[in-house]
Amino acid sequence: MIVLDGKKTAIALKEEIKLTVDKRINDGKKIPHLAAVLVGNDGASLTYVGSKVRSCEQIGIKSTLIHLEDTISENELLQKITQLNNDDSLDGYIVQLPLPKHINEEKILLAIDPRKDVDGFHPSNFGRMALEMDSFIPATPYGIMELLKRYKIETSGKHCVVIGRSHIVGRPISILMSQKGPYGNATVTLAHSRTENIEVLTRSADIIVSALGIPEFLKADMVKEDVVIIDVGITRVPDTSHPKGYVIKGDVAYEEVARKAYAITPVPGGVGPMTIAMLLKNTLLACERRD
Amino acid sequence: MIVLDGKKTAIALKEEIKLTVDKRINDGKKIPHLAAVLVGNDGASLTYVGSKVRSCEQIGIKSTLIHLEDTISENELLQKITQLNNDDSLDGYIVQLPLPKHINEEKILLAIDPRKDVDGFHPSNFGRMALEMDSFIPATPYGIMELLKRYKIETSGKHCVVIGRSHIVGRPISILMSQKGPYGNATVTLAHSRTENIEVLTRSADIIVSALGIPEFLKADMVKEDVVIIDVGITRVPDTSHPKGYVIKGDVAYEEVARKAYAITPVPGGVGPMTIAMLLKNTLLACERRD
Repeated sequence: MIVLDGKKTAIALKEEIKLTVDKRINDGKKIPHLAAVLVGNDGASLTYVGSKVRSCEQIGIKSTLIHLEDTISENELLQKITQLNNDDSLDGYIVQLPLPKHINEEKILLAIDPRKDVDGFHPSNFGRMALEMDSFIPATPYGIMELLKRYKIETSGKHCVVIGRSHIVGRPISILMSQKGPYGNATVTLAHSRTENIEVLTRSADIIVSALGIPEFLKADMVKEDVVIIDVGITRVPDTSHPKGYVIKGDVAYEEVARKAYAITPVPGGVGPMTIAMLLKNTLLACERRD
Repeated sequence: MIVLDGKKTAIALKEEIKLTVDKRINDGKKIPHLAAVLVGNDGASLTYVGSKVRSCEQIGIKSTLIHLEDTISENELLQKITQLNNDDSLDGYIVQLPLPKHINEEKILLAIDPRKDVDGFHPSNFGRMALEMDSFIPATPYGIMELLKRYKIETSGKHCVVIGRSHIVGRPISILMSQKGPYGNATVTLAHSRTENIEVLTRSADIIVSALGIPEFLKADMVKEDVVIIDVGITRVPDTSHPKGYVIKGDVAYEEVARKAYAITPVPGGVGPMTIAMLLKNTLLACERRD
């Protein structure tokens, strides 16, 4: 059984990005520059953004944290977005979600210049991805594709069941894995909350990508031997025996499913670490496209 | 067995659009105006464009055929596109494909103002569709959705197998049918040229949408009882006994599959006629959005 080690892979990937950034610096080219917009003080968002900024520093990408009060109006935030679009020193930026309730997320998203949209959430990038043009691929599905590639997981002609139809994971990965090209060409089924008899489906799958958010949903009796498992679920489950008061659980009952699997991502340490690495990769890409 | 009569449904739909257009005229509002750009003299393209223009006339939508020599340069065509984007009298336009080989189709497509892109082929519209925002939905998948709706075909929780991953049919219909909402919520599998054991998949399907282009590919032994069949294939098969020298065949062996089906689209007279009706609907929509 192969553990698809996202932590190790992300480190290797960041090392490669660092080398490219170093070479840019040596060549006198522009240093990639990412900005992260954070509105308010949501704990999880602070953690995510902090970790993105730190990762930039590790590999020599310039980063700017723009921390705004949660009292900011939609209009003021839109003005900020326009500023970032026009800021020539910036290659890309992200707006950390969720935004406060009085701000329309769709409106903000649509205001981002697609060329700086390193999260790949703008419909223009999403459409370009779906139509197989150059784009920014959202970090989580991009990270999954990179893991499949690094571990040389055969996908062509395989039946892949994606569980969850979110805009940022399920939908894009279902598209990417069914497109032509290496680590694509899978026959993909997209399952979701309305899917009936999901266990019949998962038992027929060669590859399962689960992005459901229900801890340990996928049990051993729901998969076939030699399945490849990509577990995107990250749920905090209360656990008083743990110093933090919780443990992180994926969508997959890891121990029992791992025994049947050909390959599996652990949680934590699987898809999660890949996500930040791919954001850095997109930032480098944004910078290179402006050369 | 229900025949999903696209011809009859398209007539009803066009009648409804005509009523809306008539009302606009009575209310002193702008008459919707569609332009069709045709480059060169390809026989099939001439037929398609002609039929689009005629359909406009039937229902009171203004139409302009812009017929250009196939010697036109890419730059000249791009200039034409800019003109159309800026032409305030126009609500929408289409560029009939294929274009001559010396013109980059992607470049032309990207130059179209998404607000006038009534074919829904621009990545911005495609992305908006995939992310469940207002958009123009490409006419063929839009027509399929409309047929399902008019015949009240239950799709929620059903297993739908889409055969073919083209940008204009397979990919978008696979997205639309798996989205939330009425006539969505299906569990969709996208099959294609690399899919193995396709008959196992089709036999498990409650609904099959075939957009493959192989005449009579889908046989009775490949489907289960009470399946719903949407046949998007249109292939000219040589037939000397026919005055035209050919007959039109769908992807489905109609006679034998119809005997097992709950509902089925004929070819011709199924999805085909719906396509033009939905183009008109998109043109009306484009006009209404500019009110």
